Amino acid sequence: MIEVPIHIRWRDVDLYGHVNNAVYLTYLEEARDRWVETTLPGTNFVIVRIAIDYRRELSLEDEDVVVTCRGVGYGTSSIRTAEQVIAKAGWVAAEAESVIVAHDEASRQARPLTDAERALLDQAIAASA
Amino acid sequence: MIEVPIHIRWRDVDLYGHVNNAVYLTYLEEARDRWVETTLPGTNFVIVRIAIDYRRELSLEDEDVVVTCRGVGYGTSSIRTAEQVIAKAGWVAAEAESVIVAHDEASRQARPLTDAERALLDQAIAASA
Amino acid sequence: MIEVPIHIRWRDVDLYGHVNNAVYLTYLEEARDRWVETTLPGTNFVIVRIAIDYRRELSLEDEDVVVTCRGVGYGTSSIRTAEQVIAKAGWVAAEAESVIVAHDEASRQARPLTDAERALLDQAIAASA
Amino acid sequence: MIEVPIHIRWRDVDLYGHVNNAVYLTYLEEARDRWVETTLPGTNFVIVRIAIDYRRELSLEDEDVVVTCRGVGYGTSSIRTAEQVIAKAGWVAAEAESVIVAHDEASRQARPLTDAERALLDQAIAASA
Repeated sequence: MIEVPIHIRWRDVDLYGHVNNAVYLTYLEEARDRWVETTLPGTNFVIVRIAIDYRRELSLEDEDVVVTCRGVGYGTSSIRTAEQVIAKAGWVAAEAESVIVAHDEASRQARPLTDAERALLDQAIAASA
Repeated sequence: MIEVPIHIRWRDVDLYGHVNNAVYLTYLEEARDRWVETTLPGTNFVIVRIAIDYRRELSLEDEDVVVTCRGVGYGTSSIRTAEQVIAKAGWVAAEAESVIVAHDEASRQARPLTDAERALLDQAIAASA
Repeated sequence: MIEVPIHIRWRDVDLYGHVNNAVYLTYLEEARDRWVETTLPGTNFVIVRIAIDYRRELSLEDEDVVVTCRGVGYGTSSIRTAEQVIAKAGWVAAEAESVIVAHDEASRQARPLTDAERALLDQAIAASA
Repeated sequence: MIEVPIHIRWRDVDLYGHVNNAVYLTYLEEARDRWVETTLPGTNFVIVRIAIDYRRELSLEDEDVVVTCRGVGYGTSSIRTAEQVIAKAGWVAAEAESVIVAHDEASRQARPLTDAERALLDQAIAASA
């Protein structure tokens, strides 16, 4: 599991005084990218699905969050990850599940995971279970 | 159903040359806000869940999208909407389902939908079914 | 001179209820990119300076702006442009002057303007004077 | 002088592979806000001018920057600050000068600086000279 600290910027907050819903995906992205880089160095991917539950508002006063990402499973070309956005005070601001697919840059198409990638994923998923 | 045209900005695109995944939520927000304003004038809400399926990449060459939003159901305080991001050329770039809750600004808490709001929702959901 | 209409998005506005200062640069970028594409098709550039005067706040109620961009001069490798952000109601929300330089993508370095580019710039500057 | 560390996010980077020009203003804002909070606690302000010179591209590989902000002068209601965006490796990515004005939230108008504010500014400017 990866943990990435993120500082809440003034620009992240909207007129309602809380971190805007779209910005949470930017936060998730920081952790997911790091998780892929660490777990599958050199693998390119694109996102095909994100489901996010907003549990509690974040505001500037919360200052910092930690975003966690771990692998939870995989298919032929897809990988499922689970993320949490956790306020500095310890409570969960949001929980998400994402699906990414291995991506061939040249063709801009999804491609099957290789055996080497599957082995690394097995390891990473087992380690965070 | 609401349809909102959105122009893709240079800033919406990331290093991969496509509209960034978080920006889709900004696009959805434009349509959902308009749908609520139209359907339930004066009602404040916050988002509690979004599930988005990214169907196809959008790039600067696609220039414009139309985002649609319609109501699909409601509970005690929650409303379910369905959104689509449609490229100018007619194909679907993303589909989403969102859950919002009526929100009391003073207490910053969810509140039950009123009978008047339920009547307006019944109408809107029937009209887009 | 180029005129680009831009719709103000909910995400463009910050906690103060006005379009955030950084977002104005995103608005300017839309017009400047279009001006370069129109005036110097195929020329890559990077920005080296922007000076922006914020004349008046923009809010969601203003709905749309028009951003104008015109050429005002050039040097060995640099081009000076002037931009305005104009509210739908006709008043000026911001005025800016920018300096861009022709850019060689391979070396990621500034390069001198070609004679052909200078001729096109002379024409464009004369036309908007 | 205030120094604020900022982590470069994937979302900060555009199709050109560098931190987008508008995002620099978000970086500056983090430092300027902190400088005002520290120097003039409780004072609200709005930005009326920013002039920014982009000295060198920042990319994801640069990972982190430090943004500095210091006071350089003031007028009847305006305050002039100077900012720098400095790469982790020590080089200057951008330099900016900004003008902010004290702002009355109720009337949404500029207001004169008070004697107490002037005294605090004299101190801060002297300390960073």
